[in-house]
Formats: sequence, structure tokens, C-alpha cells
Amino acid sequence: MLNPCDPSFVARLGALVPEGTLSAPEPRHLEEPRGRWQGQAGVLARPRAVAEVAAVVRACAAARVGIVPVSGGTGLVGGQIMVDGPAPVLLSLERMTALRGVYPEENAMVVEAGMLLADVQAQAEKVGRLFPLSLASEGSCRIGGNLASNAGGTGVLRYGNARDLCLGLEAVLPDGSVFNGLTRLRKDNAGYDLRHLLIGSEGTLGVITAASLKLFPRPAERVVALLAVPSPAAALKLLSLCGERAAGMVSGFELISRMGFDFLAETGFDLRSPFDPVPEWVVLLELELPAGLEPEAMMAQLYEAGTGAGLVSDGVIATSEAQASHLWALRETIPLANRKVGAVSSHDISLPLSAIAGFIAEAPGAIAGLGAFRVNCFGHLGDGNLHWNVFPERGHAKSEHEAVRDRVKTVVHDLVHSLGGSVAAEHGVGRLKVSDLARYADPGKLAAMRAIKAALDPAGIMNPGAVLA
Amino acid sequence: MLNPCDPSFVARLGALVPEGTLSAPEPRHLEEPRGRWQGQAGVLARPRAVAEVAAVVRACAAARVGIVPVSGGTGLVGGQIMVDGPAPVLLSLERMTALRGVYPEENAMVVEAGMLLADVQAQAEKVGRLFPLSLASEGSCRIGGNLASNAGGTGVLRYGNARDLCLGLEAVLPDGSVFNGLTRLRKDNAGYDLRHLLIGSEGTLGVITAASLKLFPRPAERVVALLAVPSPAAALKLLSLCGERAAGMVSGFELISRMGFDFLAETGFDLRSPFDPVPEWVVLLELELPAGLEPEAMMAQLYEAGTGAGLVSDGVIATSEAQASHLWALRETIPLANRKVGAVSSHDISLPLSAIAGFIAEAPGAIAGLGAFRVNCFGHLGDGNLHWNVFPERGHAKSEHEAVRDRVKTVVHDLVHSLGGSVAAEHGVGRLKVSDLARYADPGKLAAMRAIKAALDPAGIMNPGAVLA
Repeated sequence: MLNPCDPSFVARLGALVPEGTLSAPEPRHLEEPRGRWQGQAGVLARPRAVAEVAAVVRACAAARVGIVPVSGGTGLVGGQIMVDGPAPVLLSLERMTALRGVYPEENAMVVEAGMLLADVQAQAEKVGRLFPLSLASEGSCRIGGNLASNAGGTGVLRYGNARDLCLGLEAVLPDGSVFNGLTRLRKDNAGYDLRHLLIGSEGTLGVITAASLKLFPRPAERVVALLAVPSPAAALKLLSLCGERAAGMVSGFELISRMGFDFLAETGFDLRSPFDPVPEWVVLLELELPAGLEPEAMMAQLYEAGTGAGLVSDGVIATSEAQASHLWALRETIPLANRKVGAVSSHDISLPLSAIAGFIAEAPGAIAGLGAFRVNCFGHLGDGNLHWNVFPERGHAKSEHEAVRDRVKTVVHDLVHSLGGSVAAEHGVGRLKVSDLARYADPGKLAAMRAIKAALDPAGIMNPGAVLA
Repeated sequence: MLNPCDPSFVARLGALVPEGTLSAPEPRHLEEPRGRWQGQAGVLARPRAVAEVAAVVRACAAARVGIVPVSGGTGLVGGQIMVDGPAPVLLSLERMTALRGVYPEENAMVVEAGMLLADVQAQAEKVGRLFPLSLASEGSCRIGGNLASNAGGTGVLRYGNARDLCLGLEAVLPDGSVFNGLTRLRKDNAGYDLRHLLIGSEGTLGVITAASLKLFPRPAERVVALLAVPSPAAALKLLSLCGERAAGMVSGFELISRMGFDFLAETGFDLRSPFDPVPEWVVLLELELPAGLEPEAMMAQLYEAGTGAGLVSDGVIATSEAQASHLWALRETIPLANRKVGAVSSHDISLPLSAIAGFIAEAPGAIAGLGAFRVNCFGHLGDGNLHWNVFPERGHAKSEHEAVRDRVKTVVHDLVHSLGGSVAAEHGVGRLKVSDLARYADPGKLAAMRAIKAALDPAGIMNPGAVLA
């Protein structure tokens, strides 16, 4: 059992860290973007150095006081919010934002965990390089949280998830010891890969304090098109066609449904579809090209090949950076419109590519008996990652469906699981999906996870209640 | 303490698995390529299905009998060879070679762990795809061993290490339970990443029985050149130049020293340098190009840019696939020549790219006091991975340096470590580098590794003595 972070513990902790490290948490530290949960904490710790992080963790381990690491606070699964139980220490790395080193000739950069993702991107750009992790929340999320949750986003198709962009980590382990693993090596087989164990463990196995990141050359050209497709199955065939004809150049392949455009109009966003009437399914296709290829000609070739194969019925190709940004804005504003409409249930799922069309066809029927719903299905089709979100009909409130909300989620997740998919694709498990993990995860995996957690964090102080119950 | 695999245990084990599963090990199961160690075992188990693997592991766990997993037997660090201690069960997956499924439209393939790497490549090619892991031993190594040791090879620069090519795993854990993780998902954040923990753990945390692998489109064109460079520092600047001008297309960047060519001649390989006189440093540069770019023109552009910047002094561009293969043969035959010459000490090291030139300049001086040596330095420069191997002078035998062999190794490894490098870059730790790991690994990492090992394999039956003492 954990002990609460009470005033006497706060006093003891205060003696171990520089003055000003501890304070009362601000509201922003106890809230999350969907407004579903309200956190609580005994104190907020904002250390300025890894030794101070270690001092906090060591003290908590000795006193069996829980620690909830908070990063940018943009997570959607409650990983940063502990609603009840013994009050924890909130540990924010927002004061650890230093650029520790940049090595453009190595395509590497070492940053502290509290650096905003947008600042990481900007630091890379300053030296003529690209850090390709890109999410809607990049202006407020921090790289430590991105790594702890193995963030995805729009660049995964070409560059991989957050874990694929990390060469090494510095972290404080649950006993307060420091893992010094800030290597900049591309090959290192000296022992178990703690980096990959910590990445995606959502703060339950330690606190990431700094990371060595991969950088990339900036692509010479990019070109964006919005293509009307007859069906999700056609979109997947188009993806395959693009992969064959533009190998290594497809950097974005996003699916948008007509409902997405309806929601943009309904919630007052001034973003119109370039198609009239709006087609049922649209693909946003982005290519990044090396120098020497004509971006628009390349895209036009793919467009013609797609049309010829019956996979594309209409399309627009951006001829300026402003137009390209507009097409991306359509895609990236949909989550904001969704939030305004108010979802009954949101699902961040991934599927084997060959199961996606079947899922999209079957899923609405599976929940039809539970109420009258609208579905907005969109997402990173190239990664097999859909955001399949269920909304009330127009003029109705999500609260009318409160009674069936859990049932909707279970029906959708059961279907995803039966098709070999994941119900925690890019947003992680947090506290929202702890029971899903227990329900769907392979028992062998779950037992191994529990054994690892018990071995590294025997008192269970690190982000109690997240990922594993 | 472990118990030996004695005749009574063999008899009990035989009752649990189909007839013919157990036999006496053949010599090939007890040997390794460098002829340094001779293995021993109580019995050889060659199961045909994952349930049989699980039965063997369960029985061993119950009886506290060690298991040494053997794959293709090509490992260079003794991970597959247990020289002494209680006789283990040798567990070979050579009968589990099935193609479980191939999904070209998903760029994915599921294979059993015993499939030869060359067969994995061929199965991908059959469906018009590329599986890019490529090593000198690809005709005899098996994919399970490649993953267990996180193999590197010549495709890492563009495609990553073995771990980067794996979507999911099936494995038998040390208690005999099965981890069913054969997902084909590109995004899956449902819990800790056991896949990455098992990959590179060299059979000490479980036995990989099958893997879901990433496939890639086959590149439209490739072009290979051999370029004479004034120095390793120039080679690194050339790498950077290529990365900027041919972003995403550099698929090979190998360093060869004049000693490599000398060794080829000395050991009777009929492979000549295209340069006369042979320059001190040569780079093998390979580009993989999308359709629409002219491979030879692209390479000629890089050549001219390199020459203009003083980074290239001479060069040949292959104008046929036969010429390209010849250039690669030069690089890939060097390890065979090395073996014929006979190394005093071989070092598989990686360094931050910016530390490489300094290391190459400094290292010969560091060992000069220990004897009269020749150094053959070559390797995957693009990955920061050098094979820096120490040989006797011509006319002398390696045995003459037996007394200083360990000292040479330590001096080289100390230097690598001081420069932020790894002494186990792509070949792993095995049994050869257990003491190096203990000497150089971060104490926080080592303690966490020990805790994980103890949690998942409390009796210590999985590959006893490998990686961790």
C-alpha cells in the first residue's frame, strides 16, 4: 500500500531539493484535454536537474509515496491524472528544457525531457535538419511525454513512431537510480534494450529526463493532394500503388470521411472541402521527394495511375505551400470539430491493413442496436491507425447515450480485437484502458509485464494505477 | 544452482515431446565460426511446433536444467556455446521453418524462427517485396537468431537493425508460457514492448519461435561506386554530403582500408582493387533510387560534388549489376581474408560519428607498446560501426601475441568507451563480452537488467552465462 504525500512528507522532501522546487500544483497540472477527469496531488515538484529528479524519486521510494509524472498534459487516456487514492507527488519536468547538444553531422540531438515538441522541431530546423515527430498538440506536448507514451502522429508512415526516433535515454528508475543511456549510437547491442522498455511504459517504470534523438535531412520537396476515393478498400489499394511507384516517398496517407467535413461545417470551422458534392471518402496524400524529381508531375502521375485503376474519382493537387497547408488543416481540424460535437465514445485503434475495409463496413452495424449514432472515421490509414469515433445524431447530446457508452466501447473493441487489432494504437493505455489491456492483452505478455513492473518498482510508486491495475 | 541434463532428465523430457524430437547433438551444434570454443550438451531438442518448445522449456524450468538456444550457429561471441557448467539442453528451431503467412499489401510476413535468412529474403522477393536484413552469413543464419542478437549488417543505414524490421514476436518465456505477440500492426501502444526486450536479449529471456516482419517495396534502381577518400574524416564529410544531396537514398556506406586489399591479396582471394596504387582509405557507396531518377547520373553528381569538396580523390562507378556485385564482393570477402590471416583481437565497436576519425587516428598508438601489429579497420561507417581488428605482422603468427591479447582488447575497449561508444555494436555480448558489459555498462542499466532477468527467469535456465554472469 502506498502512503499519501502529506504535509510532513512535503516538508521532508523540501529539505532534499533546492528552494522553489516544490509548490502547490496549478490547475493545468490537474486537468486533461477531454475534461473527463480531475487530478489530485499532495505537491508539485519541478526539479531543474536529473539529480533533483533522483532525489525526489528516492525519497518517494523510501516513503512509499506515489509519483505521477506530468509532461505537456495533452495525453488523452488519463496517464497524467490520478483521480483518487493516496495523494501522489506530481513530478513535472517543465523546467528541464535544455538542449544538451546538437550534432547535425551525426543527425542527432540530445534534449531534456521537458522541451516542447515544437521547440525540438525548431532546434533541428536551425541546423538544417528535420525532427519528424508531428502531432496536433506539438505546441504544448513535451518530448518526455511523447517518448513515455510512444507518440504517433502524422509522420509515422515514413519515419516511425516516437520510439523509432530515439537513440538513447537518460531516466530515473523507480529506486531513484539514474539510467545513463544517452548514447548517440546507431548500433549498440550491449545488453537489454532498456530504452525501448521505458518508451511506451507511460511513466510506470521510471521517469525519462533526457533523450538522444534521431534527426533527418530535410526533404527537398513536398507535395500534397486531396483525392476522392470510392471506398476504404480503394484507398488501401491506392496506398499500395503509391508504395510501389513512389517507394520511400509517401510521407502522409490520411483518411477523411464525409462526416469529418460535415462536422467542420456544423461546428463553424471555416474550412471547406474542395469537392462539391463532398465524397464519402477522401485521402490526403503527401509525398516528400528528393531533389531532382518534379513534385507536381510525380503526384500527377500517381493521380493518373489511381484514376486509371478506378481507385481515384476526383482530386486536387496543392500547387503552393499555402494550399498544402490548407489541405492539412482540413485533416488536423477534425479532432477539434469532434470535440465541439462531443463524442459518445472515441476509439484509437489499429488494424492489420487488410482488415481495415472489413472493420469500417462492419462496425456501424455492430453498434446500431445501441442507439442512433453518427460515426466519424478518420485517421492515419497508412499506419492502419483509425480514430473511429461515435457521436449522437445532430440535435442530440452525448449525455443521452451515457448509459450505453461503455457498451459501445466494448462492442467496438471486441470487434477490433477479433480482427487482430489493438485498442490502444497511438494514445496509449493510461488509466482509461487499464481494463481493456487486462481484457485483450495476451496472458503471457500481461504476466511478463507484471513481473517486470514488480521487479523494477516493487513498491509500485511510479504512476500508480496507470497501464497495470 | 542448475542441474545437469542427465540421462534420467532426457528420459523424462522424451516422454513429453514427439518421438524423434530429441537426439544427440551433431558437431555443428557445438562449434562456432572462429573455432575458439567447443560446446557441450546433455541432449539436442528439435521441436516442430511452439507447443513442443513450451513443453521443453516448462520441463527445464521445473527441473532447473539450463537451455542453450541455437539458431544458425553463426554468432561470433559464443552466445550459442556453453563450454562448461551443468550440461544444458540444446534447443534448435531448425525444424520450425514455416512461412506462416505473407501479406504483400501490408508489407508484412510471418515466419517461424528457424527459417534461414536467405529464405526469408527469397520469400519476400517472391511477392515483389524486399526484406532488407543482409549479412555475410545470410545463407546459414536463421531469423530467430538474427532477432535474438539484433543483427546488423549492410542494410542498417537505410532500413535499421533487425529490431527495426520486426512488427511482432511469438516466444516461449522462461516459465514455459507462450507470448503470443505476432501482430502485424504499425502502431500498438497496448502495454510494455516485450518484443524489443526479447530482441537483443540473446536467448536469456526466452526463445523466439516466430516473427512478424516488415517488408519494403523493392527499390527501382541501385548504383554502387568505390571512391578513394583522403581520410576517414573526409569519408564522414562525404557521408554527410550524400545524406543532404541524396536524402533517403544512401543504402550503403562502407569503409575499407588499404590493409583490407593487402589481406585479400595475401590470402589468395582473386579480388583486386580497381585503384593502382591502392589508396589508404576507400568508401563503398550504394544508392537505392526510386523510379524516375538516373542512377549513374545521380552517382556521378555525388562523385563530382565530393571531388569538388576535396573529399574524393578517385573513383569507379559500377555500370552493370556484375560490376556492382564485384565491388560488394571486395567488401564482403575481407572478413574471410581476416580469418585466414588470423586476428590477435577483433573488435566490433560503434562510435558517435564525430568520434570516429579521432578513434582511428589514436587507437593504433594506444596498442603500439604491446607488440608489432597490423590493423585492418573496415566496416559500416554510415552506422558508426567499425570492425577494428588487430593482426600480427606478415610472417608472424597470432599465437606469438597470446600473452597480450586480453590487454589489447582492454586498451581498445577502454578507448571506445571513453569516446561514448559501444564495445558490442552488432555482434552482441554472448559469452565473449560478459565481463566487458560488467565493466562498461551503466550501473543503473546493469542493475535493471539483473532485476528483469531475475523476474522473468528466476531459476536462470535461459542461456546460462550469456550476457549476464
